[in-house]
Amino acid sequence: MPYQLYYWSHVQGRGEVIRLALEEAGVDYTDVAREQNSEEESRNVILNVLQDKTLSRVPFAPPFLVDGGIMIAQAANILLYLSDKIGLAPPDEPGRIFAHQIQLTVTDFLMEVHDTHHPISNAMYYEDQVEEAKKRSANFIDNRIPKHMAYYQNILNNNPTKSKWLIGETLTYPDLSIFQIVEGLRYAFPNAFSEVEKHYPKIIALRDAISIQPNTAKYLASKRRIPFNNMGVFRHYPELDK
Amino acid sequence: MPYQLYYWSHVQGRGEVIRLALEEAGVDYTDVAREQNSEEESRNVILNVLQDKTLSRVPFAPPFLVDGGIMIAQAANILLYLSDKIGLAPPDEPGRIFAHQIQLTVTDFLMEVHDTHHPISNAMYYEDQVEEAKKRSANFIDNRIPKHMAYYQNILNNNPTKSKWLIGETLTYPDLSIFQIVEGLRYAFPNAFSEVEKHYPKIIALRDAISIQPNTAKYLASKRRIPFNNMGVFRHYPELDK
Repeated sequence: MPYQLYYWSHVQGRGEVIRLALEEAGVDYTDVAREQNSEEESRNVILNVLQDKTLSRVPFAPPFLVDGGIMIAQAANILLYLSDKIGLAPPDEPGRIFAHQIQLTVTDFLMEVHDTHHPISNAMYYEDQVEEAKKRSANFIDNRIPKHMAYYQNILNNNPTKSKWLIGETLTYPDLSIFQIVEGLRYAFPNAFSEVEKHYPKIIALRDAISIQPNTAKYLASKRRIPFNNMGVFRHYPELDK
Repeated sequence: MPYQLYYWSHVQGRGEVIRLALEEAGVDYTDVAREQNSEEESRNVILNVLQDKTLSRVPFAPPFLVDGGIMIAQAANILLYLSDKIGLAPPDEPGRIFAHQIQLTVTDFLMEVHDTHHPISNAMYYEDQVEEAKKRSANFIDNRIPKHMAYYQNILNNNPTKSKWLIGETLTYPDLSIFQIVEGLRYAFPNAFSEVEKHYPKIIALRDAISIQPNTAKYLASKRRIPFNNMGVFRHYPELDK
């Protein structure tokens, strides 16, 4: 039975780090909401799970993954569960703990990215929080992007194996998430990030190395890769860029 | 060698869910920053690690834990690592995955709590983002607190064992984090939360059950429990309450 991934069918969002891992691993999976016949059915197949009051172990939000009898939510938790099974985990226990640590830092960063355009509330339109979004984005660009980039580049610099990957000598799942961050920041903040990225050549080299992995390259060129848009985590509003 | 926890010495903050677990388990640990002779030394013992450019697996931020030769960051990752060793993990693998899933949802919630008083930037004073904080807090109180409370109460309602705990028949580490959320919301939003909490009797019963566990009760009455204050995650600003 293939893995069943449940995530919104119209955005990369918080589900993309899992899609990237499943695709790079080349394993069989169903992107459940994308297999439905209408947008409404796509939404409902997720909402029906979230709103099922009889489930004893319900997710708080998508993404969630069904593997046989188990349902797992929270993107980093899903990657922790999957990574060994699909060959994207470091081989040793300290490496696995560190991979999860990086992934949780990426998770925090993605939440910050989301809040650049929704600093007041998820339940309000962007248009009703533009002024606050401008302030938050300016701070995000000046302080948070460089802090995260410096952190990830330092990990690359200090990998004792001197490989191009974050951990050890092989590609592991957090490498794919760093690719996603670079792609997302290039989309959301093209002016600001084109300056910033010059300072992080190892991160860009990692991004480039991921982009030419055969399975990932195939995925990125396919219709399965949903284009960035202004409904996801990374959104491009020129007024929030530099 | 006792576990060495590194977290700011003046706040509960993101480290408190770990302190609660170590205390409830009754295991030997050193709260490293609190063992120093001055505030400056307390800060430096953490900053020296974060700024050590030679470390190959450096934390992004505290809390982090040292256990012999391994250093682990991210609160939920630390709890995942510790919980089995200190007797606070569910006994079976699906239970462990679900415990981590709940803990990651708590982590997201704590980030949202922090952003009620810092919706624009961590690098700016609260006083320079009060107006935005008022808007964010009003939405947080109306939408986010009930959403999270309903989620945790639903887990309690649907625990197939009918125990008072989140998972199975025994106390596990996410139960302690729910206790911390209730205490924090009572401190930060006393007016708003005194109304809200009436709707979640099972969560309050869980909070009460935690508060009388012998080890936790001893901890809460000791000087090791740092009082809530306006430097942590949960802060009380009357203008942000109802």
